[in-house]
Formats: sequence, C-alpha cells, structure tokens
Amino acid sequence: MALNNRNFGRTKAIVAFLLVLLLAVGLFASCRDQQEPGSEQLEESGISSDLAAIAEARGLTPDDVSAALKTYTPSGTHDEYILFASGGHAGQVYAIGVPSMRILKQIAVFTPEPWQGYGYGAKGSMEVLAGGYVNEDLPLTWGDTHHPALSETGGEYDGDWLFINDKANARVAVIDLRDFETKQIVKNPISLSDHGGTFSTPDTEWVIEGGQYAAPLGWSYSSIENYRDDYRGMITLWKFDREAGRIRPEESFAMELPPYWQDLCDAGKLVSDGWIFCNSFNTEMATGGVEKGEPAFESGASQRDMDYLHVINLDRAVEVAAAGNTTEVNGFPVISLDTALEEELLYFVPEPKSPHGVDVTPGGEYLVISGKLDPHTTVFSFEKIMAAIEAGDYEPDEYGVPVLNFDSVMETQVELGLGPLHTQFDDKGYAYTSLFLDSAVARWSLGGPYADLNDDPDWTLVQKTPVHYNVGHLVAAEGDTVSPDGNYLVSMNKWAVDRFANVGPLLPQNFQLIDIANPGATMQLLYDMPIPDGEPHYAQIIKADKLEPWEVYPEVGWDPITQSVSPHATAAGEERIERDGNNVEIWMTAVRSHFTPEHVEIRKGDHVTWHITNIERAYDATHGFTIPAYNINLSLEPGETETIEFEATHDGVFSYYCTEFCSALHLEMTGYLFIEPDDSQAFSESD
Amino acid sequence: MALNNRNFGRTKAIVAFLLVLLLAVGLFASCRDQQEPGSEQLEESGISSDLAAIAEARGLTPDDVSAALKTYTPSGTHDEYILFASGGHAGQVYAIGVPSMRILKQIAVFTPEPWQGYGYGAKGSMEVLAGGYVNEDLPLTWGDTHHPALSETGGEYDGDWLFINDKANARVAVIDLRDFETKQIVKNPISLSDHGGTFSTPDTEWVIEGGQYAAPLGWSYSSIENYRDDYRGMITLWKFDREAGRIRPEESFAMELPPYWQDLCDAGKLVSDGWIFCNSFNTEMATGGVEKGEPAFESGASQRDMDYLHVINLDRAVEVAAAGNTTEVNGFPVISLDTALEEELLYFVPEPKSPHGVDVTPGGEYLVISGKLDPHTTVFSFEKIMAAIEAGDYEPDEYGVPVLNFDSVMETQVELGLGPLHTQFDDKGYAYTSLFLDSAVARWSLGGPYADLNDDPDWTLVQKTPVHYNVGHLVAAEGDTVSPDGNYLVSMNKWAVDRFANVGPLLPQNFQLIDIANPGATMQLLYDMPIPDGEPHYAQIIKADKLEPWEVYPEVGWDPITQSVSPHATAAGEERIERDGNNVEIWMTAVRSHFTPEHVEIRKGDHVTWHITNIERAYDATHGFTIPAYNINLSLEPGETETIEFEATHDGVFSYYCTEFCSALHLEMTGYLFIEPDDSQAFSESD
Repeated sequence: MALNNRNFGRTKAIVAFLLVLLLAVGLFASCRDQQEPGSEQLEESGISSDLAAIAEARGLTPDDVSAALKTYTPSGTHDEYILFASGGHAGQVYAIGVPSMRILKQIAVFTPEPWQGYGYGAKGSMEVLAGGYVNEDLPLTWGDTHHPALSETGGEYDGDWLFINDKANARVAVIDLRDFETKQIVKNPISLSDHGGTFSTPDTEWVIEGGQYAAPLGWSYSSIENYRDDYRGMITLWKFDREAGRIRPEESFAMELPPYWQDLCDAGKLVSDGWIFCNSFNTEMATGGVEKGEPAFESGASQRDMDYLHVINLDRAVEVAAAGNTTEVNGFPVISLDTALEEELLYFVPEPKSPHGVDVTPGGEYLVISGKLDPHTTVFSFEKIMAAIEAGDYEPDEYGVPVLNFDSVMETQVELGLGPLHTQFDDKGYAYTSLFLDSAVARWSLGGPYADLNDDPDWTLVQKTPVHYNVGHLVAAEGDTVSPDGNYLVSMNKWAVDRFANVGPLLPQNFQLIDIANPGATMQLLYDMPIPDGEPHYAQIIKADKLEPWEVYPEVGWDPITQSVSPHATAAGEERIERDGNNVEIWMTAVRSHFTPEHVEIRKGDHVTWHITNIERAYDATHGFTIPAYNINLSLEPGETETIEFEATHDGVFSYYCTEFCSALHLEMTGYLFIEPDDSQAFSESD
Repeated sequence: MALNNRNFGRTKAIVAFLLVLLLAVGLFASCRDQQEPGSEQLEESGISSDLAAIAEARGLTPDDVSAALKTYTPSGTHDEYILFASGGHAGQVYAIGVPSMRILKQIAVFTPEPWQGYGYGAKGSMEVLAGGYVNEDLPLTWGDTHHPALSETGGEYDGDWLFINDKANARVAVIDLRDFETKQIVKNPISLSDHGGTFSTPDTEWVIEGGQYAAPLGWSYSSIENYRDDYRGMITLWKFDREAGRIRPEESFAMELPPYWQDLCDAGKLVSDGWIFCNSFNTEMATGGVEKGEPAFESGASQRDMDYLHVINLDRAVEVAAAGNTTEVNGFPVISLDTALEEELLYFVPEPKSPHGVDVTPGGEYLVISGKLDPHTTVFSFEKIMAAIEAGDYEPDEYGVPVLNFDSVMETQVELGLGPLHTQFDDKGYAYTSLFLDSAVARWSLGGPYADLNDDPDWTLVQKTPVHYNVGHLVAAEGDTVSPDGNYLVSMNKWAVDRFANVGPLLPQNFQLIDIANPGATMQLLYDMPIPDGEPHYAQIIKADKLEPWEVYPEVGWDPITQSVSPHATAAGEERIERDGNNVEIWMTAVRSHFTPEHVEIRKGDHVTWHITNIERAYDATHGFTIPAYNINLSLEPGETETIEFEATHDGVFSYYCTEFCSALHLEMTGYLFIEPDDSQAFSESD
C-alpha cells in the first residue's frame, strides 16, 4: 500500500487529496479495533479519524454518506437545476435549488409580500394584484396556488416565463423569469374556482386553466336543484403574447363542459400537439348534502367505476373561437357545449374512477392516467383515440358527448400499487408514478417507442421506493418536456409527521429528493426538505443554465412592470418636491447611503405621489423604502423606479428609512416625512 | 491489510459497514491510477468507486466532505438545535433546524399568511393583527422584524415564548411556542418606529423595546427646528405576564431619553441583573437635509469620536413607574428625563462612535461594544461602571445625563479588524465578533473569570474566518444565555451575490453555519443557507429538546387565541344553521373527508358568522377552509375551532373546500355556499 505516496499530479490535487483523505479515514477506521499495521502512522496524520468520527457521532449510515455527498453544495457552487414549486395556499411560488434543496427565493404571486415590495404601495404591483380581483369590492390578497407551468419552445422549457393558477379564486398569474416577479394576474371571467391549470402548450401560445367544482358559469346563481341544467364545467384557454409578456384576455376563450368535475389537464405534444387532455371525477353528478342524509361528496362522487377523460381538439377550438362561434358569458367568449359537439371538439374516454392526473409521454404518444382507487395505471394510445374518433367508435353520454370505447383506445394497464396518482418520465424509457396509499414511488418501464431505451420488459413495474409519508404529485428534471433529463425526482409529500423536529400542530410538507440517474440501481432517497408553507401540489424542474435572470435592471429608472424606463425616472440632481393645491408630487433618489431629499414637508390631507429611483448599478445594491404607520414598503433593486400614492390622513413625524442592510451606514439611510396638522400655521411652500 | 475482514461485532454493524465502505472507496481510489494489488477485488465489490466518484463529479474538497457529513441530517433524524430568525421586512419569523439549515416553519407575525389562516378571516388572528394598528384607519399588514428574543428562566432559554419587534411601526409580538403561533401584537404608544428590541430580562418579567430615530413622543408633530427641545429617544419596558402569555400594556412603562438615536440593547444578567444597556449613534443630533446642502445623515451622524452607551437602572425604574412618578404620553406612563435624572436611573458611557450592538457576557460582568468605524471592540466592566457611579466620576451632557469617564470603566480594547459589529459567546471562554467590512468572523479570548476556560492569552484575537459576503449579526447556540453551548455559530450575511444561482436582481440573504466546537481547530464553514426573504437581522438558537410543542390541540373545540375550549366548539351531530333576521350563524364540523353541512344557503346582504371545528384527533389531520372570492382561508389544526364573520355582499354559487391535502379524497371535501340574489324569490327558511 502506498499510503504515504502523495506524488499526485498538480492538476489532480484536489481530487487526490480527497481520495487520500478517504483512504486514510477508511484505513484508520478499519484498523482501529484490529491494530493492523500502519494505523499509528495514520493517526499521526491528524485527519484520518475525523470523517469516521463525524459519521459515527451523527449516526450516518453508508447510504446517508452517499446521499450527503450527492446533495451537499459547497459555498459558491451553484445548483444544477432550479425547481419551481407552487406555494399552495400560501399563494406564492418557491424557487429551490436541486440537488441542494435550498429555497433560493419565494416569489410573491397572489399574496402581498413586503420584502419584495409587492402589494405594499408600489403602484405597479398594486395594479397587478388588483387585476385579479373579482371586483374592487372584493379585494383578494391570497391564492391557493396549485400547478406551475414553465413556458416552452418546441416542447422544451425555455426559461422565460412561469405561470401558475389560484384554485380558490380561479386566477392565473404570469411571472417574468428575468427578474422573478409577477407581472400579471387574470381573473377567470366565468368561474369562481378552478383546478386544472396551469399547463402550457408546446410553444406557449396557450395557457390552460381547467375547472373543478361545477357551478353556473359567469359567477351567477342557480339553485342546486338545477344542477344538471345550469351547473357546468369549463376549460379556459388563455392566449399568451410572448413579446408583451402578457396573457391577452381579449384573444382568449373558454369552453363549456358538462358538470363533471374536471381535474387536471395536460397539453399534447409532438404527435398529439394541438390536443388537450383533462381527466374528471364526479361524473356521478353527486350534489352533496350530508347534513340532509344525502351521501357526502366523498362517497357520492365515487360511485361509478369509470369517469371521463376529456379529449379536446385545441387547434379546431381555436378556429371556432376565432370565427366568433361563441356565446358571451360575463363578457367572455365561450364555446357552448352544443357548438363543441357540432364542431367535434370534445370526446370522452372512460378512465378508472376518480383519477388525479393525466400525463402525456414525452413523445406525445400515450396518456397515463391513474384512477386513485384502482391499483393500476392505465395507458391510453393517442393513435388509437384518433382511430376510434375516425371510425366513429363511440356512444353519446347524457350531454351528447361522444364516449369512446375503453378497450379500443387503451394501450395497457400496469399494476403499480395502492393509490396511484401522478406520473413523470425520464430519458431512459421509464415512468415514475406516485402511490398515495402505499407511500411510495413506482418506477415502471414504458413500451412502444420507449422500449429500446431500457432493458426491462415493456410496461412493467420495475421497482418501488418508500417515501414519507404521503406523496401527491412528483416531479422529474425537465419532466414535462419532450426530452426529460432523468437524474432527479422529487416526491412531494404531505404530512411530514415525524420527519422533522416538532414545530407545532401545523406541520411542514416534505419534498423528498430521489436519485433516479441509474436505472440499474435502486432509486436512492437523497434528501428530506421541509416546505415551511402551504402544500406545494406541483412543481417544474428546469436546468439552471436555461435561466438568464438579470443581475440589475437594464437601465436606471426601470419600471419592472412595463420592463422599460419609467417616465418618473429621476437622476441625481433632479430630485424635487412639487405642490399643486393638495397634491404633492415627490421625485426622490436612493443611493448608498442616503435618500435625497431627507426632509419631506407636507400637510395633513394632502394627496401624495412619490417616485423613488434607485440610481445604483452595483449587483445587489438594493434599497428598501418604508414610511411608518402608512403600510408602505418598497424593494428598489438597482436601477428600479417605483411610485407610491397615498392620502396623508394622519399628521406626525415619520422616519422613512431603507429596509435593506445596504452598507455599514444603512441605519443612517433615513429621512423625515413631516405631516403638519391641518390646524397648524400655514405651510410654507418656500422650503 | 485485512480488506475483506468484515467480522465486526453485530452491535457495531452500521458503523462497521460505513468504515469498510470508506476504506474501500479510499483504497480503490488511491489504487485506481497506480494499479496497486487488490484494486480488482475492490472494484468487484461494486460499492468501492461510488463515493469517490460522487465527490469527484461534484467537485467536493476534503473540507466539503467533512462539512457535508457534519450537516446532512437523514430522513427522520431531527436537528439538534432550532434557530429562530427574524424574517426582516417580510414581517415573519423563521424556525430553522441546525445543523441541517432547513426551514421548518415560517411563523406569521406581522404579515397576514393564508397557509396558517393568519389574517384571512379567522377572528382570533384578525384581532391579533388589529391589536397592532396605529388606529383602525391605518391598518398595518406587514412589519420590519428585527430582533427575536426567547423567553428565559434564570437566564436560560426556557422554550416557552418568543418575542420580536417591528422596526417600521414600533410594535412587539408575542409568539406561543406550544403551537408556534402569534398571540399578541402591541403598538408602542409613544413612538412610530423602534429598533432596540426585543430583548428579554433573565426571567422574562420585562421585554425591552428601544427606540431609534428621534421624534416627538406620542406620534405628535413638531418642526425639525425644535429638534433639541421636542424630539426624543425612548425605551419601553413591556411587562410580560407568563401565566396569561400576554404583554400587559397597563403594567408597562417607558422612559424618555435624549434625542440620540438609540440602537440595540441588552439586559444585564447575573451580576448585572436589574440593569439595561443600550448603545446609540447620532449623538451629534444631525437632522439631515442633504437636499438643502446640509450633511446627509450618513456623514452628519458620524462626526464625533464617541457616542453614548446608555446604562439604565431597570430595578429602580420599575419602582419609580410603580410609584406613579410618570407623565402620560398618548395615555401611556413615561418616566420623564428629568425624573430619570432625579431618580438616578440613567448614565452614559462614552463608546467608540456609531456602534451597532451591545452584548453582555454570559456572567454579566462585561459589556462588549464595537464602534463599527473603529477596528477595535471595546470591553466595559460592569463592576467599574458601578464603582464610577458610586464615586460620582462623571460630568453631565447637554441634557444633564451623567457621562462616566471612559478610562474609568473600560476594561480593555481588542483589535479585531474592519467594521466590527456584534458579539456572541461560547462555553470555552471565547467571544465571536462579526466584521462587516472584513467579511469575517473573529474569535477572541475573554479574560477575567473566563480566562481559565481556554489556553489563549486574555483578551486576544485568536483567529478570523472569512464569510461571504457581508455579515451583520451573528448568533451562537444558546448564545444569549448565562451558559452558551458553543458548537455552532451562524453568520447572518447580506448580499449573497455569487453564492447561489441567480434568481433575479433581488437576492437571497445567506446564513453561513460555522463549526466552533473545537477551539483548537480552525473555525470551519459548514453550510451556506439562502434566506429567501427579507434580511433576518438577528436570531436565537435554542436546544431543540427545550421545545415541547403540541402535536394536536389539547381538546376538541380549542380556541388557539385563548388556549382554551371555545364557546363555539361544535361536536359531530351538533352542526346547524340559525337565522335571526339578516344574521346567519353556522356551526360546522370538519373531518376526513367532509364538511357538515355541505350546503349553506343564505341571501345576499346577510351578515354571516361561521364557526368551524376540526373534530380530528390524529397528528397532522389539519383541514383548511376557503370560500372563493371572499378572501377567506382558515387552517384548522386537529381540535381547532375558528370563527369567521363576513357580509354576503355578492351572490352566486361558491364552492368552499378544504385547502389541505387531507386524504386520498381531499378533492371531494367540499360544499356549496349558495348566496341567493336579493331580487330573487323569497328565501325559504325551512331548509
């Protein structure tokens, strides 16, 4: 043994040192009890016992050591992937590094968030939030975010935009990945709540928002007795204008669907591009009423063996909508169910009951659906669906929708275990399905064009790995694209129970990172990550190098809503205060470490419009700005201009200050807002 | 070499396997290039190359491997410490596991948070938030949290309560660590903003809230020309009633201070118990006005070489306040500066200029203060301060406050480096000071009674370790107690810059975990943790086993605000809807997986009071409850009863549902709220 031979090449110095260290530790450790020759020398090296002692003291198993090395991301080393996870009923989105599983940013979406200056006075963000109100009498300051969707080009994530829905209030938000800020929220004009969104078509021309609980369209009232006639499901197709970075409601439309409860959707891709697939439950049309002796929804909606996969011809629906063959509901164009049937836009496929996910294979050939009360996952063939439609192989349901023959369009069923929910794909011909009741993730082999990618028999369960405890969705690296990466899978679990230290009756969720890189090896659980917020539902994982966010805003005076220079941009030397009657307008600059002006003198009763420009160009020279008591806080990233507007309803002396630790003298970055009482002596305008 | 000898004892099986694994890897790796005997056998073992390959592929250095093993916390293993960090201008508090550095919970404090059902309709939390309003015309829905303080018993963290201030609006919050929820927010009656809070006295009889920017007391107006006469600093002593778990404003009081800008405070302990120490800056009384050609605050407040450490006799001040020797300001008792001087409550000690922290040694003997523009840290002796007061060794300042002689009370100065800010302590006689400009943490030895704990010369810089990039506060395990643990230190850095993947112009902060367990070894940087939110300022680290949070609420029908059974608790079978004119009251239960009732029929214009009881007793059987469009979301932990109240201003059909993934049938946990239009046919009350 050449234990002391450290004559490694310079270029391999770090690796060499590591290897020698590992060797030394191992050798010392194995020798420790047995007094093998050489142990004394190793002990003298001073490093040999350290690693073993650490692992022993911390109770780490060999698998733990491997997992530690696979996930530990040293200071300054960047993560390979970024995971965008819904923040559930916190209303936000998380950006998480993979494999380190560290939260890099919480992006404010539906819930005001002061650190980001989102909804705390900054006019742009106030308008974004107000864009999602049902009306101005019903402000909405939260959301139940469910399914984020990255924008795609040619079926690949392009790193430009992120969309997410609010189930509680049927809204869709647009996040710009240049600055990781929410730029738009649109309220669904026909539905009060949703679920089946967001999903992007392969070139992000359309953002899909599917419904869930049937109700009269257009937010209107009708008695539950009229359920079959007046209650409806829906799917909304939001047109996305990539140049403008905005959803165009005026170019968007919806489709009326039967009052089955649509669940999740997915866009077709490659061979199935131009189609949309949405599953459903409660095709029983149970209306609840447990307090009246009716079956509760949980049982009433689970009576039939089959529910309906909705197969929607998007390309043709777009033509129908463009031709104006729509009816207006609450001012929004809706393709009626009758029109959808006339124009052959909608078909149903029986699917094992109460499924919770429809996932299209990377090439678009198959739709994978798991009825959560059935131990199988069911694979449908898009080709067979097209053939059955062509052949007229269907019977109408109660609403006249053609129901295809299950056996004609089903490719195969694979028995996976209890409570299968969602499916993701890798680059090696495998699918991964979450098993809610088994608390496991199943790896199974695909067939058809994927058969040659792996050595396993087609359509076969290969392996299951336990997760803790209850998995809902799962997400794989680039898993919704036409070319998944494999490598990593995240099991998105609810009910962390004993996984983490007790932090009270409301528990964190648990993201478990799983190594799926090597199909020949057991899937390895790498990391438990507590999610300190609402249930994240779904996520997307993108290669980090596809993202190209700005470090600072492109020019000084930047308005992050218009993504252009603001008319209120203020340069150093241009700061001023102007009064016009009771209207006071202020142009201020911020730079390390002072605001100009430092004194703002106004009167009680004034209407104040206040522009602030951060004139810094240095990376991370962000300034905050708050006025006590007035519920105002801004985040002014380098170059940013923001405007606030408020009524000076209360007099006093208010110390505005920078809420960022912007320099050693950040405490001195302050100024006084003087609001004179209205009964005091006349305000001098000469200041 | 006994490479294949695996005859280890059964009881040591896990450790043995690990050791063999490490040995095998090391040996294989070192042999790989050199073709030493035995490498083939090792390769055949199938495990030997894995760890080395992982480390090599991920570019891990030996220090990285050590850090990975010291921080990786396997699934189901709990962290040794919990770090409570301020969420900065996000307004919240984070609970973070140490050493894994995973965020276990974000506790909503000053900012409404829907996941926790905090401020989204639940009456109790709405009242907690409203308790912190300046008045009802100025609702406050955020805070700039700065300094959390754990409750103490005998100077030790007891794990019962956590306090935190809101700098932007001068408020203090009380968090109950049984359920990790905010129970109270009090608004400072005399100041609009604060800074020097919260700090706890050794038995948590008092919670300290010090001021910052001088202003007329009582939120009143006065011109800046009257600064020296009308503007004042302050310190507020909030009386904490441990039995009730509430601050008692009616038993609290404040002290008027000169218009120097008080910064941070600390309570005396052991020998200095009964005293409070607050540093200050801008004893220059600069009033800003850069736009008028005056020096900006950043320079104006940095002219003098010395500022004033405030030394306050708390015990005597309590007596003075109890005796009613106070004046009322905005209805709150304030000890005037004149009374403070008469009663000998206040002394000043010159301190090197613009310090940013005063930290009392574990035994209470010394006060460590670093003027951030001076490379030294200065250590003052409490004993010498007492002697100087006794000897009358002082001169009055402009306001008549006795200023002690610097040389009489200074124990020593230690040169540490550029930009020293804050200091923490370990159990081995060392202090740790953050160096803002050096971007480093300095370890230095204490003298006096701490001299025997270590082998270094007294009061000497021992070592510096770089951090990335700009450290503000730092925090050590149990670092503010009378018996710090050592072990871990967290450097709380701003400006992460290149440490993490770019997530846009607004960057995460960076908590760097440092191993300080072994004073003979170099302090080792263990982990970079991005903070995806506002600057955390300060934190507290407590031994995890001191916390004993509830897993579920003690009884069904629990009101988490009163911590007792609610009068509105509803058992299964007791659900009902009652109408009295336009007032509708609903008693509902939630259990997996249905609400009772599932139909709630009301009329537009009704005033609705709605009680919901989660009747579950299982750990983590939390239910949510939302009503679309009405901005309502509750989190009902097992046993919890909540009440919402709203006006039914908009008609329609609203699907309320459980926002938690509470079972495989959680999507079916829903019901319909029917709000009939007021112009429709008469509502039938017989339902």
